[in-house]
Amino acid sequence: MLRSPIKHCRNCGTAVVYRIPDDGDTRERAVCPACDTIHYENPLNVVGTLPVFADKVLLCKRNIEPRRNKWTLPAGFLELGETAAEGALRETDEEAGARIELEGLYTVISVPRVGQVHFFYRARLLSTELAPGPETVEARLFAEHEIPWEEIAFRTVSETLRLYFADRRSSQEASPDSYPVRDFSLG
Amino acid sequence: MLRSPIKHCRNCGTAVVYRIPDDGDTRERAVCPACDTIHYENPLNVVGTLPVFADKVLLCKRNIEPRRNKWTLPAGFLELGETAAEGALRETDEEAGARIELEGLYTVISVPRVGQVHFFYRARLLSTELAPGPETVEARLFAEHEIPWEEIAFRTVSETLRLYFADRRSSQEASPDSYPVRDFSLG
Repeated sequence: MLRSPIKHCRNCGTAVVYRIPDDGDTRERAVCPACDTIHYENPLNVVGTLPVFADKVLLCKRNIEPRRNKWTLPAGFLELGETAAEGALRETDEEAGARIELEGLYTVISVPRVGQVHFFYRARLLSTELAPGPETVEARLFAEHEIPWEEIAFRTVSETLRLYFADRRSSQEASPDSYPVRDFSLG
Repeated sequence: MLRSPIKHCRNCGTAVVYRIPDDGDTRERAVCPACDTIHYENPLNVVGTLPVFADKVLLCKRNIEPRRNKWTLPAGFLELGETAAEGALRETDEEAGARIELEGLYTVISVPRVGQVHFFYRARLLSTELAPGPETVEARLFAEHEIPWEEIAFRTVSETLRLYFADRRSSQEASPDSYPVRDFSLG
């Protein structure tokens, strides 16, 4: 299971049954036998940033599970009412207390095994004064050779960092605005 | 409200209360007073394609609400277990019975008012034989001057079409692979 199963109807509380609804659907859903509510479950979006200051990138040491004490780019679940860019800015503020300017969407990575899509935006860090929030043990800047590759919390983060350093090397002259958006999936 | 509110706990069926959880969260969630389950609700991803054959694009006339009888690019909700690209392919098959080859992510459009993010991939239509499914009244190809702009179902679709025709005009020489990915939001 990707998540804990739905046991009761969100509308009336009756125990649900998993079956294919009668409306032409092709997948099993949690259906309420009392009020006919169909409960859909869909992938979640995780939104974050890759903040850059001179030749360094900002990473946060996680103070929460999963992967407590591993390093990540600032990121978290997109909330209702937000755009992807707004969510990425908010998470960067919450986790690192970092003042940034978003530069553009950079990676869009589907992770079907856990039902998530991860978005990372390139960002310009405007100040090295950081104020990590309660979800972060420590926030600091790393040059490429300092990145703790074996201690990165998530593969979407290490892939985003690897792509960024590769793009930076191969386009010394080019503006970061010319870095292509990468859309792919991790199995 | 973006969606109908959660009234009962998915785990035990008890009536929930909306409050800020005690775990450092900052938003009201549906919390179960009996088993403490916190119910998160997050934006949904809609994934689809912009299938092109020669100078024409494929549109589908919707046979379902909302916007029944309006025209759309083939698209629908991303499902658990899928990548964004897989979902876009599946929806194109289900709604148009179209054989396509995906060419690249093209638009990523946040629509915070309805709690959605829409993804459209450029695609090459491999055959003009179409087999619309039950959610589609009719699927057909349109040249730019034939597009029924006033009868397009969703703004994310009309914006994606407008960008595509503009990019095609301004880059006659360039490969579609050089079309930039567009990330923006619609209020």
